[in-house]
Amino acid sequence: MEKGSLLYEGKAKRIYATDDPDIVWIHYKNSATAFNGEKKADIAGKGVLNNKISSLLFSKLAERGIQSHFIKQLSDEEQLVKKVDIIPLEVVVRNVIAGSLSKRLGREEGEEMPSPVIEFYYKDDALGDPLINDDHIDYLGVATSEERREIRDMALQVNSVLQTIFNEAGVILVDFKLEFGKDREGQILLGDEVSPDTCRLWDAETRQKLDKDVFRRGIGSLTEVYAIILERLGGTAHV
Amino acid sequence: MEKGSLLYEGKAKRIYATDDPDIVWIHYKNSATAFNGEKKADIAGKGVLNNKISSLLFSKLAERGIQSHFIKQLSDEEQLVKKVDIIPLEVVVRNVIAGSLSKRLGREEGEEMPSPVIEFYYKDDALGDPLINDDHIDYLGVATSEERREIRDMALQVNSVLQTIFNEAGVILVDFKLEFGKDREGQILLGDEVSPDTCRLWDAETRQKLDKDVFRRGIGSLTEVYAIILERLGGTAHV
Ligand SMILES: Nc1ncnc2c1ncn2[C@@H]1O[C@H](COP(=O)(O)OP(=O)(O)O)[C@@H](O)[C@H]1O
Ligand SMILES: Nc1ncnc2c1ncn2[C@@H]1O[C@H](COP(=O)(O)OP(=O)(O)O)[C@@H](O)[C@H]1O
Ligand SMILES: [Mg+2]
Ligand SMILES: [Mg+2]
Repeated sequence: MEKGSLLYEGKAKRIYATDDPDIVWIHYKNSATAFNGEKKADIAGKGVLNNKISSLLFSKLAERGIQSHFIKQLSDEEQLVKKVDIIPLEVVVRNVIAGSLSKRLGREEGEEMPSPVIEFYYKDDALGDPLINDDHIDYLGVATSEERREIRDMALQVNSVLQTIFNEAGVILVDFKLEFGKDREGQILLGDEVSPDTCRLWDAETRQKLDKDVFRRGIGSLTEVYAIILERLGGTAHV
Repeated sequence: MEKGSLLYEGKAKRIYATDDPDIVWIHYKNSATAFNGEKKADIAGKGVLNNKISSLLFSKLAERGIQSHFIKQLSDEEQLVKKVDIIPLEVVVRNVIAGSLSKRLGREEGEEMPSPVIEFYYKDDALGDPLINDDHIDYLGVATSEERREIRDMALQVNSVLQTIFNEAGVILVDFKLEFGKDREGQILLGDEVSPDTCRLWDAETRQKLDKDVFRRGIGSLTEVYAIILERLGGTAHV
């Protein structure tokens, strides 16, 4: 497999073409961003950690029957994945009140919810990724109602698999963001990444934040807590 | 029917008890507010206009089989209505892109939508009436999923009746906000008001704004345009 030209550079990853039109090469960058790009930093080691964690979680999800774009980890910072047309929805699954939901509903951070709450945000940086509802999705035409239901079901499945994995690692899966895409055949696959950049993860005992909130709120070392997650999941941070 | 003690004073209306525990007396005030109470003014004649328009529209809705709290108009500024427990949802129905939807989705104000879009906002001034989705409603427990569907259906019915009424009056029904409540028997009734304070109304020919946006944006006389609406609906503004 040959690494081709740069197709797209995002805030956290670079996407390269390969000699197979259905496969892309992902490079995980060291940049950390928050608040829709307002806060930025370059953090040595972040790309490796997220690539390793994401590869590990995609593998575990595949073992439990969840189809994703993931093909294989190539190197410390690189992954090979199936190319998809990303559906411009950020699909958020929440088990415990935190972040914007706490503000939206006026409920305390840390309150557990009796069943997971799913939210769809319109993936559009210029609009600040606004929360949208099913009628908005219909109007925008970004997904049919059938696709919306399929995405919702897949997100709930991912949630129950990830909850088991993190629970065994002594970590509370507070919430996380997923992206889905369609492959050439129109099949919906889980895409993008699953990492402490896109999940809220708290230590089950101490409730220590082990995710990007450490960077957002400036309350600790990002790579230190990401390394804890990787190791708790059975990976090795330092080689 | 006797007017009793003040039960609640809101931004636009005062609610009084009556000698019947199932009936309340509503006084439409002259105050205009916008941006969650940040902009305020006292506008002589506003209460009369909104009371007359709202009474007229509730009557027309009843003729078309839509159950509301409305019993009768008592005076220029007063109405008698069935007392309900208001469900803390602001139910917005949209036919044409405007206001916050234009900002949320990045679409031009004035774009007609192929089918109505319904939005639920959590009625909570302290939180700024945030947009919420069905999962949030389930979590908050403000309505069961059955009630949510009933409210949605009623809102769509109200929309088609109001669209006919306004269309005959040469007015485009851009969007509007409804509140629903439950009576003593638990039946869901349309409550609150239906007026240019709670609807976006544009002249069908000129697209002139004939609603509270005139006040929000400081682009004309509120009472002048509300009087146009009342007269187009067959009422008389001045007696
Ligand atoms: N399998 C895939 N095929 C094509 N694009 C993908 C795939 N997985 C993720 N992407 C997209 O790659 C881009 C780069 O990721 P990222 O740096 O996180 O970007 P962003 O700044 O948009 O969040 C994103 O737009 C993401 O949706
Ligand atoms: N039939 C009813 N029974 C009881 N309360 C009602 C009824 N209709 C409307 N209300 C409530 O009366 C209050 C006063 O109205 P308003 O001045 O518009 O208040 P607000 O400032 O909350 O918008 C609102 O809380 C509204 O929900
Ligand atoms: Mg991203
Ligand atoms: Mg009101």
